[in-house]
Amino acid sequence: MNVTVHGRTRHYRTVTFDLRRNAVCLIEQRLLPHAFKVVAATDFHQTARAIKDMIVRGAGAIGATAAYGLAQGSRAFRGRGLGAFRRHVETVFETLKAARPTAVDPVNAMNRVRQAMQAGQTVEEQQALALAAAEEFANEDVRHCQQIGKHGARLIRNGINVLTHCNAGWLAFVDVGTATAPLYAAQAQGKRFHVFCDETRPRCQGATLTAWELAQQHVSHQIIADNAAGHLMQRGQVDLVIVGSDRTLGRTGEVANKIGTYTKAVLAHRHGIPFYVAIPLSTIDWSLESGRDIPIEARDESEVLGAWGTTARLTSPSARRPVSCPRSPSPRPTYVRVANPTSGALNPGFDVTPPELISGIITPSGIFRPRDLWARRRELAGGR
Amino acid sequence: MNVTVHGRTRHYRTVTFDLRRNAVCLIEQRLLPHAFKVVAATDFHQTARAIKDMIVRGAGAIGATAAYGLAQGSRAFRGRGLGAFRRHVETVFETLKAARPTAVDPVNAMNRVRQAMQAGQTVEEQQALALAAAEEFANEDVRHCQQIGKHGARLIRNGINVLTHCNAGWLAFVDVGTATAPLYAAQAQGKRFHVFCDETRPRCQGATLTAWELAQQHVSHQIIADNAAGHLMQRGQVDLVIVGSDRTLGRTGEVANKIGTYTKAVLAHRHGIPFYVAIPLSTIDWSLESGRDIPIEARDESEVLGAWGTTARLTSPSARRPVSCPRSPSPRPTYVRVANPTSGALNPGFDVTPPELISGIITPSGIFRPRDLWARRRELAGGR
Repeated sequence: MNVTVHGRTRHYRTVTFDLRRNAVCLIEQRLLPHAFKVVAATDFHQTARAIKDMIVRGAGAIGATAAYGLAQGSRAFRGRGLGAFRRHVETVFETLKAARPTAVDPVNAMNRVRQAMQAGQTVEEQQALALAAAEEFANEDVRHCQQIGKHGARLIRNGINVLTHCNAGWLAFVDVGTATAPLYAAQAQGKRFHVFCDETRPRCQGATLTAWELAQQHVSHQIIADNAAGHLMQRGQVDLVIVGSDRTLGRTGEVANKIGTYTKAVLAHRHGIPFYVAIPLSTIDWSLESGRDIPIEARDESEVLGAWGTTARLTSPSARRPVSCPRSPSPRPTYVRVANPTSGALNPGFDVTPPELISGIITPSGIFRPRDLWARRRELAGGR
Repeated sequence: MNVTVHGRTRHYRTVTFDLRRNAVCLIEQRLLPHAFKVVAATDFHQTARAIKDMIVRGAGAIGATAAYGLAQGSRAFRGRGLGAFRRHVETVFETLKAARPTAVDPVNAMNRVRQAMQAGQTVEEQQALALAAAEEFANEDVRHCQQIGKHGARLIRNGINVLTHCNAGWLAFVDVGTATAPLYAAQAQGKRFHVFCDETRPRCQGATLTAWELAQQHVSHQIIADNAAGHLMQRGQVDLVIVGSDRTLGRTGEVANKIGTYTKAVLAHRHGIPFYVAIPLSTIDWSLESGRDIPIEARDESEVLGAWGTTARLTSPSARRPVSCPRSPSPRPTYVRVANPTSGALNPGFDVTPPELISGIITPSGIFRPRDLWARRRELAGGR
């Protein structure tokens, strides 16, 4: 999507490949929203570290990064022996896989690259095929998000207020995003609407990443405390909710997503507000039989006990219009302790929303009722 | 309640009067939970400023502070002329009233003091009566909170998990608090239970004040992100919700309280979890006919866009046991900007919970169904 740096607007993907430098180029997401910077990982070790250190995060984005990383590592091999090359590729694969051991996307992405490489007869051919497959993986990610946008844009009537939670935006994918895709597509169709971004404590991805994205695309929006959504719904100020998902159960239609999603679904249901989940097909888990079997990560309590921010002076409302982004120097936000120093916290990272609270699942193949996924599994499981 | 400073445990009220110095002594709540300090306002101008600057906050606490402030100001009068004295008292009254113009508690409290003074024949007698009335106001606040505790403690079964939102604790009153009163009473009865404190964004009164209070009283507790309550309820980890209220409508049973309360009530209702509201009788508004007529304060967006905290090192879990409180030097928490610098926020301060979501209202006179308040208005409106 577009980013304006020093008054100049340019299109960026979250992750791209620099052929000349054999580098994986990434938006340094840890600096956002306070500064914008693209970093180049010039070997696969750096690429693995970028995944591990969360320079890049989000299912689609880390998938593409790993795919590019595998191509990058393959291309760094000097020699002609296919046996040594294969062992080298294995090392690259394992290094990138170990960067985020619980994530499934990097492994799926790299498996596709490795499979495409088989068709090559020489090291050189396999290297070229690896890069082509990684590019295709990234391009497909973008196409799928665009298809989600095309289907989802129908839900956005002119003049409505949309609520979203966390960041299932283009920063979490290669471009466009999932929950944001319908917004960007509707904007391109000339529709006008307003977005409420839940700040999404404790990590505040809504207040930082989603708000930054929407500001850069000139989408009208406001950040709200997670506590405020119920009140706004009660007063008729929310017409539609769209969120993403980390894992959707194909058998039951249950949706695991960032903590707080379930609460918003319960509220939307009470107020008769449509609640949609936008996902790439790769997010569907066809094996698990119950949402209760989804492991809920217990994250570090420090996230709840404090916040990350900068002491930089507040932007005055009048200075807000030019949404230009400082490039650098780029101070990383600092952590402040908010809570009572002698108290602990409980920090579940995700929750599970049951299908009866979900109006529809927006996928690249269309919008489905959550309980209809299973009946269409042949068609849907064919996709990524 | 008890506070442990430098390993020494002492009982404190939120506000007391120092006869010798003619001073109103207040816990400096802006430093909590990072430091504990009692400050003395040595004339009524300082007392007014303490209310205005939020050194003291909370309905009962500012009521008692204003009552003491009026007595303090009266006692500072030098002379015997009743006419000049009356004019002086009027000035004190208006100064204290102007410190928090939208609050009703300081005015109600000062009216009671002023009325009690009428019985005095001389300046000296009126001064003595003023102080006695202020003391009685503070003592009555404590008694009422204790009665709330007595009635509410019945709801706390041994071993349960209780959720609370914001701070309706002793810091908001003279002592004991309202939503916390049943907890402290149950603890005194030897019951064991665990409390989840919603952090209560954006001002985090749960993570700071309620958590501090509970730690000081050695009540088992954990802070949670506001987003986590729904998940915990879904997993059967919450047995009871108790919150306070800023205004309860006697005619309809609707409850206005800190933003996010409504959300917790909706969630509790879905999961069949009892949801109680603890209030002093003074909080009941007998005139308004609909919750939609309650003005919802639109607070400054900076609260949502950032957070207040300290960069002090985290207390390690093992260092948590002695809940000793540093007295001073006492750095006030600093504000950090969390959100995207080019985004704005919407910040409603309160929401309204309808009676069908409320299991009961815990008052000093007993526990009532919200819709039964009106039928019992003669009995209840007689109280403060």
